[in-house]
Amino acid sequence: MKRNLYLKTTPVEEAREKYMEVLGDVLEPRAETVRVIDALGRVTAEAVFARYSSPLYNSAAMDGIAVISSRTAQASEARPLTLKAAEDYVIVDTGDPVRKPYDSVIMAEDIQETDGGVIIRSSVPAWQHVRPVGEDIVAGEMILTRCHVIRPIDIGVLLSGGVTEISVFAQPKVGIIPTGTEIVEPYEDPEEGDIIESNSRMFEAMIRENGGIPERYGIVPDDYEAIKAKILEALGDNDIVIVNAGSSAGTEDYTVHILRDIGEVFIHGVAMKPGKPVILGRACGKPVVGIPGYPVSAYLAVENFVYPLLRKLTGMKEPAGSSIKAVLSRRLVSSLKHREYVRVRVGKVGGRYVCAPLARGAGAAMSLVRADGFCIIPQENEGYEAGQTVDVTLFRSAEDIDSTIVCTGSHDLLLDVISDMMSGESEGIRLSSTHIGSLGGLMALQRGEAHITPTHLLNEETGVYNESYIKSLFPNQEMLLVKGVRRIQGLMVAPGNPLGIHGVEDLTRVRFVNRQRGAGTRVLLDYKLKLAGISPEDVVGYDAEASTHMAVAAQVASGDADCGMGVYSAAHAMGLDFIPVGDEEYDFAMRPETIRMPEMQCFLRLLESDGFKDKLNELGGYSFEGLGDIIKIGG
Amino acid sequence: MKRNLYLKTTPVEEAREKYMEVLGDVLEPRAETVRVIDALGRVTAEAVFARYSSPLYNSAAMDGIAVISSRTAQASEARPLTLKAAEDYVIVDTGDPVRKPYDSVIMAEDIQETDGGVIIRSSVPAWQHVRPVGEDIVAGEMILTRCHVIRPIDIGVLLSGGVTEISVFAQPKVGIIPTGTEIVEPYEDPEEGDIIESNSRMFEAMIRENGGIPERYGIVPDDYEAIKAKILEALGDNDIVIVNAGSSAGTEDYTVHILRDIGEVFIHGVAMKPGKPVILGRACGKPVVGIPGYPVSAYLAVENFVYPLLRKLTGMKEPAGSSIKAVLSRRLVSSLKHREYVRVRVGKVGGRYVCAPLARGAGAAMSLVRADGFCIIPQENEGYEAGQTVDVTLFRSAEDIDSTIVCTGSHDLLLDVISDMMSGESEGIRLSSTHIGSLGGLMALQRGEAHITPTHLLNEETGVYNESYIKSLFPNQEMLLVKGVRRIQGLMVAPGNPLGIHGVEDLTRVRFVNRQRGAGTRVLLDYKLKLAGISPEDVVGYDAEASTHMAVAAQVASGDADCGMGVYSAAHAMGLDFIPVGDEEYDFAMRPETIRMPEMQCFLRLLESDGFKDKLNELGGYSFEGLGDIIKIGG
Repeated sequence: MKRNLYLKTTPVEEAREKYMEVLGDVLEPRAETVRVIDALGRVTAEAVFARYSSPLYNSAAMDGIAVISSRTAQASEARPLTLKAAEDYVIVDTGDPVRKPYDSVIMAEDIQETDGGVIIRSSVPAWQHVRPVGEDIVAGEMILTRCHVIRPIDIGVLLSGGVTEISVFAQPKVGIIPTGTEIVEPYEDPEEGDIIESNSRMFEAMIRENGGIPERYGIVPDDYEAIKAKILEALGDNDIVIVNAGSSAGTEDYTVHILRDIGEVFIHGVAMKPGKPVILGRACGKPVVGIPGYPVSAYLAVENFVYPLLRKLTGMKEPAGSSIKAVLSRRLVSSLKHREYVRVRVGKVGGRYVCAPLARGAGAAMSLVRADGFCIIPQENEGYEAGQTVDVTLFRSAEDIDSTIVCTGSHDLLLDVISDMMSGESEGIRLSSTHIGSLGGLMALQRGEAHITPTHLLNEETGVYNESYIKSLFPNQEMLLVKGVRRIQGLMVAPGNPLGIHGVEDLTRVRFVNRQRGAGTRVLLDYKLKLAGISPEDVVGYDAEASTHMAVAAQVASGDADCGMGVYSAAHAMGLDFIPVGDEEYDFAMRPETIRMPEMQCFLRLLESDGFKDKLNELGGYSFEGLGDIIKIGG
Repeated sequence: MKRNLYLKTTPVEEAREKYMEVLGDVLEPRAETVRVIDALGRVTAEAVFARYSSPLYNSAAMDGIAVISSRTAQASEARPLTLKAAEDYVIVDTGDPVRKPYDSVIMAEDIQETDGGVIIRSSVPAWQHVRPVGEDIVAGEMILTRCHVIRPIDIGVLLSGGVTEISVFAQPKVGIIPTGTEIVEPYEDPEEGDIIESNSRMFEAMIRENGGIPERYGIVPDDYEAIKAKILEALGDNDIVIVNAGSSAGTEDYTVHILRDIGEVFIHGVAMKPGKPVILGRACGKPVVGIPGYPVSAYLAVENFVYPLLRKLTGMKEPAGSSIKAVLSRRLVSSLKHREYVRVRVGKVGGRYVCAPLARGAGAAMSLVRADGFCIIPQENEGYEAGQTVDVTLFRSAEDIDSTIVCTGSHDLLLDVISDMMSGESEGIRLSSTHIGSLGGLMALQRGEAHITPTHLLNEETGVYNESYIKSLFPNQEMLLVKGVRRIQGLMVAPGNPLGIHGVEDLTRVRFVNRQRGAGTRVLLDYKLKLAGISPEDVVGYDAEASTHMAVAAQVASGDADCGMGVYSAAHAMGLDFIPVGDEEYDFAMRPETIRMPEMQCFLRLLESDGFKDKLNELGGYSFEGLGDIIKIGG
């Protein structure tokens, strides 16, 4: 077991500055000439000057006739004047030249045709309705400065100014080398032990979005000589080379050794989480960056260390990230050893922005897909308390955040269905769901961190769902409960039910997987166990927690557990057998003012739509009595 | 002269809504399947679900050894435990599967190698450092909703979830037909009467930026049958057809007649300025839009009437435009007949945003290039007063605006030079110049609408430049004057000086072009005329005004005037002869706090740089005594 020793990790800015400094002249941008009509999005390498004026000549600004202004002096309402065609005037359309001796234009609406001429009823000054040469652009004038990103309007003006080719910065080529004996192409069917190679494709897209041209090489197995040969090949064809992964300190992490062999390593390890195992090196006079394998680490490493290289070569500026202040919904603890990037969901609830941290693991790529932004915990900071106001760098526009319904509570597949339907509406509204169970959701609603809470909490004494919980959590307040669906809960077991599980009484002899504390499904399980006279301690796996119906189903499907409790639709989606235990009411709690939001009106409309019911019937296990009814609670 | 009669113009929203309504099902988006690796920027046509879980299996989250947790129970610091290779543990790297009976991982750092095994010093619970199957993505889970624009991270997650192809909205094809007998391709050398065809290339770029595929046809002359045939051809190959121009009511504006012939016209003329002559029609079941010829009209017509069609077909949402409140620097009068789009420059001066209207003509394409945003005057509004706060829709980010130096005053080509140099700096700062003459600039500075004012105003009595003007305009205030260049002013005449002009005394016998009132150059001319005993009334063209040195030079170059006064660099740039009249001091006035702005520090650094002087020496006519000296005035 031979492992690398990490150099001490370097703070992010220090690492970046040091790298840019040592690379120095290596990163000088190259210029190339392109046709203006192909230049959209390219960056000017030098200022661009007009070759022609626009208009090119004195031209008519209106449809009408060009006249000699001095000859119109006598015309008035009282004494109309007749102008003779070809002698006193010529007909012009907008844009036509106004040539000497003509020096003014009368609009078509202001003349009256007559035999061999026109009648006018007022005099005109010189240069009326004439656009003088160079009114818009003067030949020799600077149209664009250097480092300007070409927009559609620039293309129009450049061509009008007689410029058909311009000098722009060449697009840097970036070689991407995916490495690893265990990784397989996405098109192959993966087996246990295989990891689908996806990072390189994400890098391709990131590089394209930032003005580079990606060149992806085939997967190279973990073999020192093979990786070295591929890096050398890539260095021959590209301006920058990225090696992914093998940047850490494991037994088969060769990149750092290869770079020391063929070039130099300036940084190995940065104080950043996720993303610590970054290698910043140089070989053959070109930058080579070693990127860690976990997707979130990979994303952050490219953003922090490859984007600056690209910007240097493309002349593009760092885009202004929009940033907002948001109230943190959960405590965030971080280490002084690194700067941490925490993905968060953001919503505007009751006039203030609130943000909820998502999964923090480096492998949690979905957290990046779901995220609305990042909250950065600086290296010199141990974290933030719940309720503290923090800075969030947004991935979306604030307008986008403002038209998002924040839904926090119990999980059901119907949330995906309605979220998808909302995305299809032209209004640009979204449903952003976080699954923390019914009780956790109601508490978030209480703290003003959610608009709505899906909940299915049974009052064991009355048999009524949800209402008593809301009443006790929101004393002396009026609240609304929008009735949702009735859904079947049951036990999910392997296909064919090999262990012969028929009810909660069988849970003492199998490996169970439970839901997290506060989940309505767990409350239902506890109730059913109590009715059956079974102690939770006798259920193996009672303490093993999963946070969604699908996660429970996945554990049963993979054989890691024999049984879990959840909704029919999840069992159905994962091809499991299902033993019904009972049905329950899955509703939506909210404050009265929420129902007036236009986004909420859309939600309610979709909830009662036939399209929604059809989709749920496809999933199976739902019924719809009272769907959309609104119940007032308390107040 | 046969001209079309306009239908009455329709308000913008009404026209758009009516058009979208009558088009109805014609605009249903089509779906197509693409590879995920090619899907960057495409829009999902339906929700996407994971095929595989990620991780695919229980996997090691760290490099180390996979162990059976129950066998570690006895280990402690006091009683280290030896585990036997192959029997008690296997070596794993991050991402390797953790197979039964192993159920936990111990990090490499926490073990000590020994003969045939390792020593551990603490017990481990089950599932330590193990990522359970589906931790990130569960098979069957929804990864993306419909109408989602694919980002790099989505590509990574889709591939990880086993999705290699997705259904996206097809990119609509848009046929673009440039028409006009007078228009020529940009690659040809234009003659008088020719207009360079540039709109269609701007449309191509606008359509690409909005998810469409443009198909540009060759220029069609103004011929009814030829245009009709080309429209029919384009309708066969595209989803939308744009005809430009010929949408107005001129003698050769055929589009509206052709559309009535082969289809329907719903709208001819919208209450929008610029952009009134828009035609919204349909033929062969597809939308055909007639777009006016003036570039700004064309831009606004496409934005208002073609973008909505594209969004309907691409599934893209309207991007959130950032909007700010800004104080208007000049009165804006508009008509109740239309909604007017006024291009403005925006700057942040003294903590508040101020906006200055740019040229309002439909032909002023450069005003769109120079603009930072639009101020929209609604149809039911007659305009705004100077000093009023108005809404501005920004083209740039507010951060970009915040780091811009607003420079208002006298024009000199050196402003272009320094602006270009500033754009090349990595800080992303800009210089935004408006040319309203020295005196106008100082008054803007007084009103808090500019950071700096370039000025060259001579005190005839003292012979000192600028200081006395600043003192009297800013009484009892401390102001700064940064010394700029000495530059040569003179008379610009045609090459070879055919009229034998040698000084201001010759101006009584030639056609002169003057600068606008308040321009330092005009003040200098008046002084020189006074010295020569010549009355302005005796100068033909004294009242003909141009607003920059280059505009004066262009008029002389085109033969519209015989002579004008300006700086050597402008005469040089336009290939004119130059008769020196005297040199003058061109300086920069500002408030004391301005000099502390980091952007201003950059400006001053560049002003004193050798690169700047080299460039000015190339232009010619400048000298640099005292350049960069700072003089305190008043206070």
